[in-house]
Amino acid sequence: MTKEIITRRFMAIQDSICAALEQQDGGQFKEDNWVREEGGGGRTRIIEGAYIEKGGVLFSAVHGPLPEAAAKNMKLDEPTDFYATGVSIVLHPQSPMTPIIHMNIRYFETSNGEKWWFGGGIDLTPHYINPEDARFFHQNLKNSCDRFHPDFYPKFKATADDYFFLKHRQETRGVGGIFFDYMDEKSGLTKEQIFEFVVAVGETFAPTYVALMQRTRDLTWGEREKNWQMLRRGRYVEFNLVWDRGTKFGLETNGRTESILMSMPPIAHWVYNYQPEPGSPEQQTLEGLKKGLNWLEKGF
Amino acid sequence: MTKEIITRRFMAIQDSICAALEQQDGGQFKEDNWVREEGGGGRTRIIEGAYIEKGGVLFSAVHGPLPEAAAKNMKLDEPTDFYATGVSIVLHPQSPMTPIIHMNIRYFETSNGEKWWFGGGIDLTPHYINPEDARFFHQNLKNSCDRFHPDFYPKFKATADDYFFLKHRQETRGVGGIFFDYMDEKSGLTKEQIFEFVVAVGETFAPTYVALMQRTRDLTWGEREKNWQMLRRGRYVEFNLVWDRGTKFGLETNGRTESILMSMPPIAHWVYNYQPEPGSPEQQTLEGLKKGLNWLEKGF
Repeated sequence: MTKEIITRRFMAIQDSICAALEQQDGGQFKEDNWVREEGGGGRTRIIEGAYIEKGGVLFSAVHGPLPEAAAKNMKLDEPTDFYATGVSIVLHPQSPMTPIIHMNIRYFETSNGEKWWFGGGIDLTPHYINPEDARFFHQNLKNSCDRFHPDFYPKFKATADDYFFLKHRQETRGVGGIFFDYMDEKSGLTKEQIFEFVVAVGETFAPTYVALMQRTRDLTWGEREKNWQMLRRGRYVEFNLVWDRGTKFGLETNGRTESILMSMPPIAHWVYNYQPEPGSPEQQTLEGLKKGLNWLEKGF
Repeated sequence: MTKEIITRRFMAIQDSICAALEQQDGGQFKEDNWVREEGGGGRTRIIEGAYIEKGGVLFSAVHGPLPEAAAKNMKLDEPTDFYATGVSIVLHPQSPMTPIIHMNIRYFETSNGEKWWFGGGIDLTPHYINPEDARFFHQNLKNSCDRFHPDFYPKFKATADDYFFLKHRQETRGVGGIFFDYMDEKSGLTKEQIFEFVVAVGETFAPTYVALMQRTRDLTWGEREKNWQMLRRGRYVEFNLVWDRGTKFGLETNGRTESILMSMPPIAHWVYNYQPEPGSPEQQTLEGLKKGLNWLEKGF
């Protein structure tokens, strides 16, 4: 299981996801190839589509000397080089009735062979929570996880609840999903098996989101729903800029800003101390932004 | 110079600034009084005015046990209580031709009397830089500083350039201003003198911004300028959520979220890799978002 094989497969996942989204949307991705000064680069693909208002499907593969702080963090004895590759996706749909989605798969290794791991996850941020759609989403994730280990779905679901949490709002970002990091042989799986799991996560993305687009695309909405979507997008900005480790790390360590911030929505609103009406669909959605809800059964 | 005197004067500054802004805008502030569980509270005033699209003028005075991390940071021998009071302002005008402005004055003391300091600053973020307005703004700040010490303006101007900087964009937030922190007897001034300086900074705010509103309110603008304003507001969000120490500290330590995030613009846009046309007013503004420019003389 070489880094070349992993890299090529990740690129292929980017390709097939872009093809599936273009087919569903009707719009087209634009590609930016970029080079990293210290080594490697990426293939950033952005869509401003008919249905996806703004979205990015990004591939990157970077290498070079491991920053000292990172080496210290990993308790490495000697300086070494690293190699990291991954696919990252954030899609902001036009329709407030269609959820925002995020997916990431990633691989890291030190060139001295001392360390390697995979990470990844998918999580869903509906502007309005529909428990049936949340159930469908979580069931798809569970099916993909269960093929590899019965513990994966419950464990990675709990990790996602903890990770995608706005502490300053005491809200989860959305209905969660799965999230895992630093996955190596200690997981009980071989490197090959972990790789296949990560690929399975990547391949779960397109059919799941395309189905969600289809389930929600004929739902009507008006100014009220659009305004609420804008406020929820504001929360998405808050999570990504204040709490998301990947975003913070990238911005603080001279990552490619325009690629990192492809996750920003096209438009977001902030209203001081906005409180939805009790009993309204907006208020009901807030009730669902909690850790530990079982979306497979009743939701909330 | 007791904390009660400082607190009352800060409240009076909040009052007079709100009155001056209401008179100029025609709109009215709405007030929220809030209480902090551990001690103290605040008076949050928000305006959605005719001219100021969204703005906050906030006063707070909080106290209680000093968090352990903070005590360690200050190298205190024993646990103690703290008292902190301040006024914070951010105004987002409707017109893209009028700058965003930020002001803060603050006082901190430990109840054992071991430590006290003042901090504060004013900085200006024009959507379109007008060197004449930037000169007027900086000259007003310099005049207020010069009454107390000839070194203050150049020193605090340089600190503002360093502080209001988006490292991930390699851009300053705007044309800067002044910024100072941890100001105590080591500054060469007595506590009374520092207090008067901080009050002078607070009292410089309203006449300066009212003059800038008047200088820019008859300038015409259209969709192009509005779009640019939305992108610049996106940058304002990025600075406040990624780099601003006060915002980060507040959000991570259970501060009052709605008061902290009053600095968010009402609407912001993000466009992937937006590049203004060479030679355009937007491109010229980017040229001015650099550290170390002398706005008192030629600007850029």
